[in-house]
Amino acid sequence: MKPKVLIVIGSDSDLPVMEEAGKVLEELSISYTLTVTSAHRSPELTRKLATEAEEKGVEVIIAGAGMAAHLAGVLASYTLLPVIGVPIDSSSLHGLDSLLSTVQMPPGVPVATMAIGIAGARNAAIFSAQIVSKKDSRVAKRLKEYKKKMSEEVEAKAGTLGKHH
Amino acid sequence: MKPKVLIVIGSDSDLPVMEEAGKVLEELSISYTLTVTSAHRSPELTRKLATEAEEKGVEVIIAGAGMAAHLAGVLASYTLLPVIGVPIDSSSLHGLDSLLSTVQMPPGVPVATMAIGIAGARNAAIFSAQIVSKKDSRVAKRLKEYKKKMSEEVEAKAGTLGKHH
Amino acid sequence: MKPKVLIVIGSDSDLPVMEEAGKVLEELSISYTLTVTSAHRSPELTRKLATEAEEKGVEVIIAGAGMAAHLAGVLASYTLLPVIGVPIDSSSLHGLDSLLSTVQMPPGVPVATMAIGIAGARNAAIFSAQIVSKKDSRVAKRLKEYKKKMSEEVEAKAGTLGKHH
Amino acid sequence: MKPKVLIVIGSDSDLPVMEEAGKVLEELSISYTLTVTSAHRSPELTRKLATEAEEKGVEVIIAGAGMAAHLAGVLASYTLLPVIGVPIDSSSLHGLDSLLSTVQMPPGVPVATMAIGIAGARNAAIFSAQIVSKKDSRVAKRLKEYKKKMSEEVEAKAGTLGKHH
Amino acid sequence: MKPKVLIVIGSDSDLPVMEEAGKVLEELSISYTLTVTSAHRSPELTRKLATEAEEKGVEVIIAGAGMAAHLAGVLASYTLLPVIGVPIDSSSLHGLDSLLSTVQMPPGVPVATMAIGIAGARNAAIFSAQIVSKKDSRVAKRLKEYKKKMSEEVEAKAGTLGKHH
Amino acid sequence: MKPKVLIVIGSDSDLPVMEEAGKVLEELSISYTLTVTSAHRSPELTRKLATEAEEKGVEVIIAGAGMAAHLAGVLASYTLLPVIGVPIDSSSLHGLDSLLSTVQMPPGVPVATMAIGIAGARNAAIFSAQIVSKKDSRVAKRLKEYKKKMSEEVEAKAGTLGKHH
Amino acid sequence: MKPKVLIVIGSDSDLPVMEEAGKVLEELSISYTLTVTSAHRSPELTRKLATEAEEKGVEVIIAGAGMAAHLAGVLASYTLLPVIGVPIDSSSLHGLDSLLSTVQMPPGVPVATMAIGIAGARNAAIFSAQIVSKKDSRVAKRLKEYKKKMSEEVEAKAGTLGKHH
Amino acid sequence: MKPKVLIVIGSDSDLPVMEEAGKVLEELSISYTLTVTSAHRSPELTRKLATEAEEKGVEVIIAGAGMAAHLAGVLASYTLLPVIGVPIDSSSLHGLDSLLSTVQMPPGVPVATMAIGIAGARNAAIFSAQIVSKKDSRVAKRLKEYKKKMSEEVEAKAGTLGKHH
Repeated sequence: MKPKVLIVIGSDSDLPVMEEAGKVLEELSISYTLTVTSAHRSPELTRKLATEAEEKGVEVIIAGAGMAAHLAGVLASYTLLPVIGVPIDSSSLHGLDSLLSTVQMPPGVPVATMAIGIAGARNAAIFSAQIVSKKDSRVAKRLKEYKKKMSEEVEAKAGTLGKHH
Repeated sequence: MKPKVLIVIGSDSDLPVMEEAGKVLEELSISYTLTVTSAHRSPELTRKLATEAEEKGVEVIIAGAGMAAHLAGVLASYTLLPVIGVPIDSSSLHGLDSLLSTVQMPPGVPVATMAIGIAGARNAAIFSAQIVSKKDSRVAKRLKEYKKKMSEEVEAKAGTLGKHH
Repeated sequence: MKPKVLIVIGSDSDLPVMEEAGKVLEELSISYTLTVTSAHRSPELTRKLATEAEEKGVEVIIAGAGMAAHLAGVLASYTLLPVIGVPIDSSSLHGLDSLLSTVQMPPGVPVATMAIGIAGARNAAIFSAQIVSKKDSRVAKRLKEYKKKMSEEVEAKAGTLGKHH
Repeated sequence: MKPKVLIVIGSDSDLPVMEEAGKVLEELSISYTLTVTSAHRSPELTRKLATEAEEKGVEVIIAGAGMAAHLAGVLASYTLLPVIGVPIDSSSLHGLDSLLSTVQMPPGVPVATMAIGIAGARNAAIFSAQIVSKKDSRVAKRLKEYKKKMSEEVEAKAGTLGKHH
Repeated sequence: MKPKVLIVIGSDSDLPVMEEAGKVLEELSISYTLTVTSAHRSPELTRKLATEAEEKGVEVIIAGAGMAAHLAGVLASYTLLPVIGVPIDSSSLHGLDSLLSTVQMPPGVPVATMAIGIAGARNAAIFSAQIVSKKDSRVAKRLKEYKKKMSEEVEAKAGTLGKHH
Repeated sequence: MKPKVLIVIGSDSDLPVMEEAGKVLEELSISYTLTVTSAHRSPELTRKLATEAEEKGVEVIIAGAGMAAHLAGVLASYTLLPVIGVPIDSSSLHGLDSLLSTVQMPPGVPVATMAIGIAGARNAAIFSAQIVSKKDSRVAKRLKEYKKKMSEEVEAKAGTLGKHH
Repeated sequence: MKPKVLIVIGSDSDLPVMEEAGKVLEELSISYTLTVTSAHRSPELTRKLATEAEEKGVEVIIAGAGMAAHLAGVLASYTLLPVIGVPIDSSSLHGLDSLLSTVQMPPGVPVATMAIGIAGARNAAIFSAQIVSKKDSRVAKRLKEYKKKMSEEVEAKAGTLGKHH
Repeated sequence: MKPKVLIVIGSDSDLPVMEEAGKVLEELSISYTLTVTSAHRSPELTRKLATEAEEKGVEVIIAGAGMAAHLAGVLASYTLLPVIGVPIDSSSLHGLDSLLSTVQMPPGVPVATMAIGIAGARNAAIFSAQIVSKKDSRVAKRLKEYKKKMSEEVEAKAGTLGKHH
């Protein structure tokens, strides 16, 4: 089966964060490929990944990168597939640099930016599922269950935790 | 025709920024509704908008708000429609507050965050078109033309501007 | 006895910080309930907690949350009980995100924001005691003793520490 | 009638911001005094205001100040009345300095911090009304009307603004 | 004569800032071309400019851009010519976004970053002259005169301004 | 009479801010010289000013500069006279750059840093008077009057402004 | 012998940082007292320390505090002795809060602010020695030796470290 | 052989970061000297290093420093050799102070600023090689190989990592 989501990381040191996106996609039974390319160190590979993604059946791209995080923006410059950016905290500035580099895109080329780090990686997967679900009602159904379960888990904790003092 | 995109603003003072999203949707011939609700001042209306949007045929929600910008997050808590957040610069902190309030969502409830202000509003429209295009090939075609034209415009300027000194 | 203060946390990972608020309330002999609900993952539970608090006898709500900390703001949108917000440092941005998301509320719906983290949690308890004391002179008396003791402790340390060199 | 709320400003240049707090108190029919004292330039007056406020019948203190905004903290050090702090944007740092100086209080002496500027001033008035209402059911009733009206105003705007395109 | 310096701007709105770089190059009699290309809107043109610059005789590239300023980084990814980046203040974040997007390059692909705005544009020109002077002793001589004159201008002002009171 | 305070500005554009320091020194009848030198553009003049100041009878140096404000630090590196630094808001970063460049001195070479801008300029003058007063009891007396007057002015305003509503 | 410098810390947790100031004073043979008082928890003790310092022979006050660091400002409001402030990194904001709370003093009441943490503590001691030296030529002499030794130590390291590769 | 690059560190504690620059220069077979001098503690040594560098055959200077990082700027004030600045994270502000102190140079005296920390140190070496290569085609050739290898390494990782799920 062709992977619907392409997860790209800017450096293999970003893997521990971004494989969280993969785990959520697996929970939602969405096929994906995870690969690495650097916007700066391997620009031709990056361009190739972006320009060929659509014809390979990819529906959404997730890009995670740190520092002056150009990866998501460069991918978005070459494709009309929705690109979701995950800023990664990999410098002394704690992700402020990657957040601003990812989110402050000029008009014309959007990058859908998520929170810095693991929270963002997990949400990138959920958001890509929300897009994929537009054409795939099974994903829509799984998302509904996921959201319901999430709410029920909080409620269960509330039941356990809530007590008077 | 049912509007495919729902643009929500947190205050009517956000209208000059967010109507830019509307203009881009019009350029792309995508129907939309623009309305106002405050996450804090009218929580019931906000909840109603979010819970009823899907059944009304809305495919994507765009939310623009300033300060402690909870609007996009609250909408996303009530629906599985993709929610795109546009932070608005409406306090002395120049949008840093609305950016962080919009983008730093906890795992489970993503908001696709765009740049602060008008650039973000325009990109929110393009990104919603990228989602809508999943089921509507005419939108996909218009986006392709839009992207091509954008590139050609820069090239035209480059031709005019570029000169030796 | 009905709890006078409702402490709400956005995630059970916030418990180590927020139970400090509970400890101070116990020192001041003020009854409270501590529970968990997420503004984003369990919006209906959050709404229920806020709308039912007053009739259950709650006089003050304390809400502690991290990242795009909407919890205090959402609770405040549904009730006129005073809501005290404690920003929690649970992302790479060290609480700047939760501070701005909690304090920068738009006009109409105040959240009384405390310092980030444990200092804020302890102060949230003291501040709620200051409110509760308006109708309960015993709390007022205990607060007076608390403040006096705090000052005396510093003076005692000053006596021990202060020496010439 | 004795004023229930004491509004203190750190400099007369803060008046345009802080008189917004006064206006909201007037809308809610809550008596107040507005005066000026500087934590740094007139420390004895500041101390006198704080230590005498309770016996004069004041129930809540609102303090607005800019830069290294110590006013709310100094007042809170001398009294157990609830002190609400409003950071004011009066330096080149756009209120980040006054926000952090007001909100980051050490454990033991809380200041209930509001948003920077006019939004914060208005919310300080509403929050003080929420405290005053604990003993005054007429204020509670007016607050309920105020909140309802606020919500209705948004809904009215939504009715006018919301249209399909 | 072949231009030695290529000045690239990310948008024609950046022209008023970046033409200051051109003016300094003219003062130093260094030939240059100024053109426009967007890293995001016209990626192919950007790539073409970078890959062809060296063979056209360009010795240094200066790139000025705002927001998530990827222009300098993208150019540097395609060429070994020294790339000097000038962050431009064109969003509500006052250039903090473009500064971090330009300077925080990952190891392997340096961008020599200058100050935000006009100061940076002027210094980019001087720095490119310092590079060009490695092979062109006339430029080295002009730089020496430029530096000397700069110092003398300050001394002249010091003579006029300095007075006792 | 030999000037006791040397005010140095990094650029003549800093004059409107730093002449406020001069005005306060005049109010306190302290003689001073105001001159201009750039840490970067005229390093030799800067060094000369610093190394010769003490033998000329200068007792305190005040240095005001913007951006990467090295002026105060460079002066302090060459002299043991107390150096007071005033960060000036002259870039798009609103003085955060000059503040950090001035205050974050490494151990061994202190710069006494004041607030950004005019408030800092005025305080630099007062602080230099506090130093000068160590050997000049007339200055001590004038400072006492200055402080008393300042407090009385606030009290007078408080009398006028304070009224019940 | 009467202590010439009064070191005040806002909390005993600040001792490890501020005792560095004491060590430098000892190196310079300047007598001092180190004590603790909180601007917020023990305001009367703080006021007493400030108002009595001058008559006790204190010539300079050094105040170190974290978070909303009001200690130096409060001391300066009560005395005309030079007050040197050392911001301490004791919250999740890494000293940005204490820096801005200490340095951004309003016109009229200066606090000479040093770097955050130990560097600042050491420099506070040196700066106070620079003030004390105005009346005590032995201190002036020791400072000269201190500065010379500091320079020689760097030069010695340069000799050892500097090598060709 | 005369060293072509002079690496200067502001403190020996900066050595672990800056020796990364040396390692890259060694990979590129470029001779260098690494030494230490403080802009503030040893200004005369700093000045000597800068003024004598050119005649000693140095072609590029790399300066790494933390806090109020004036080292690169001071060196640049005394020489027309290209100066590359590496901000080092050595204070509680995580390198924001050294970044702004290094990059925000006033017009006339450029410092080519790299990323904070090790990434910046490595890039400083590469950038200096790009300058040196202007006159040395062997360095140009080595740089080409370095860039090619870098790209191939990413591609190799992409081959290994990329897999479908």
